[in-house]
Amino acid sequence: MKNILLTIAYDGSGFHGWQRQLDARTVQGAIEEALTVSLGSKIAIHGTSRTDTGVHALGQRASFMCDVAVPVDKLPMILNNSLANGKIFNERIPGEIGILKAEEVPEDFHARFNAVGKTYIYKIRTAEDKDIFARNYCCQISKPLDVGAMAEASKYIIGTHDFKSFETTGGTPRESTVRTVYDLSVTKSESNISGKANEIIIQITGDGFLYNMVRIIAGTLMEVGLGKRTPESVKHIIDAMNREKAGHTAPPGGLYLKEVYYDEELMRNNKE
Amino acid sequence: MKNILLTIAYDGSGFHGWQRQLDARTVQGAIEEALTVSLGSKIAIHGTSRTDTGVHALGQRASFMCDVAVPVDKLPMILNNSLANGKIFNERIPGEIGILKAEEVPEDFHARFNAVGKTYIYKIRTAEDKDIFARNYCCQISKPLDVGAMAEASKYIIGTHDFKSFETTGGTPRESTVRTVYDLSVTKSESNISGKANEIIIQITGDGFLYNMVRIIAGTLMEVGLGKRTPESVKHIIDAMNREKAGHTAPPGGLYLKEVYYDEELMRNNKE
Repeated sequence: MKNILLTIAYDGSGFHGWQRQLDARTVQGAIEEALTVSLGSKIAIHGTSRTDTGVHALGQRASFMCDVAVPVDKLPMILNNSLANGKIFNERIPGEIGILKAEEVPEDFHARFNAVGKTYIYKIRTAEDKDIFARNYCCQISKPLDVGAMAEASKYIIGTHDFKSFETTGGTPRESTVRTVYDLSVTKSESNISGKANEIIIQITGDGFLYNMVRIIAGTLMEVGLGKRTPESVKHIIDAMNREKAGHTAPPGGLYLKEVYYDEELMRNNKE
Repeated sequence: MKNILLTIAYDGSGFHGWQRQLDARTVQGAIEEALTVSLGSKIAIHGTSRTDTGVHALGQRASFMCDVAVPVDKLPMILNNSLANGKIFNERIPGEIGILKAEEVPEDFHARFNAVGKTYIYKIRTAEDKDIFARNYCCQISKPLDVGAMAEASKYIIGTHDFKSFETTGGTPRESTVRTVYDLSVTKSESNISGKANEIIIQITGDGFLYNMVRIIAGTLMEVGLGKRTPESVKHIIDAMNREKAGHTAPPGGLYLKEVYYDEELMRNNKE
């Protein structure tokens, strides 16, 4: 038996999130289906992050135990082939999932429990007109955002805080709502698709995130960018420990799980 | 009765092309459904170009006769609302189609018969690794392309020629296979999504295009860019008047109907 860790990218638009469901098309379900077809035995995988419906991943991780006869580095090719030809609930999986890497890890390694942190990005497009091609891949806002004010507000979020105000209640119960945000940046670039649009990227790295935390931070920062809140108000939101004080939960299509860290040093030094 | 001309953008990934079909999800079908829901009567629209499955549009046109009680300039908003909430064959149409403009045109105007030319673009992404998010929106090639050679080859295509070599046989019968290409450019830009990828755009303007003509030109230019053909060979392909001499038909996802012209002067001066 080998313990194998996968690195996975996916377009979440067509999936009901990561987690396997009996009657819905999910990313975990599709990959497990591909593993069964490719390796011949029923395999359960453990993902790092249970991303919601419509949320994307550039570097999700998942581990599983398996007897594999083929070299582990051939697994991405084998799984990608089987995903490209595969079906789940009678629907094709036409390239929405990419297995980027497979590596053998120690027997006691677990993709979720061993993770020490993650980086997410949240994409925003500001332009007068909506771009139908971007509808599932960013949050589209018709007014310009004050990126300077958003960056200023970010400073209050960086650090170790009780993020109760930034959690949707009703998620998995947590021991504590204290989390550490190592880095949070807001950058703007002109889109090369249309000269009239701007792309704003929020990038956040932390040791862990509460349910919807990144999307609530993104929603709050957008309200700061629109001038509906001051940058300083973010400090009061944190202090209030009350979800109602924070901004709206930004839509799922703008969110991408970018990277998962298993080595604390690496995470701290990997602020792009 | 008013004669109304629509300008339409759509993401073709989820449609079986433009043309209405009894049992398949098409763009024309979705817009006619939205018109019926919005205006209360069964309306048939005439599109300029019958784009194939997977082909996109930034500026498709379609005209129809109708008694409309609302101001014509309110139609895009009304139709977009009804498209966003609409269903076709029990499937939602979640923002894949955008009605960009509606205008009243003379009684005898027809979106297809009055068109004097069109501009298409074909998008190519060159990078070692495939980007799953780009899978439906460009042709992905793992090797770099010689854009200079492609531009040189383009010179042989510009002008009035018999383009029989660049037509898939079996399409609608045509009186003649002679067409005029007014402009054909090949440009390269670094993608802002990943620094390691390049985006190459082929833009072509002509008085009309044969079935699959743009995709066969794109496929042939890609083969020139890969060094599989010389730029000069394109002249011999045209002279041969034989489909087998030209390159492959590039995949549909890279193709976008960018603009339709009803005024010849405008088209000739509108080379971007």
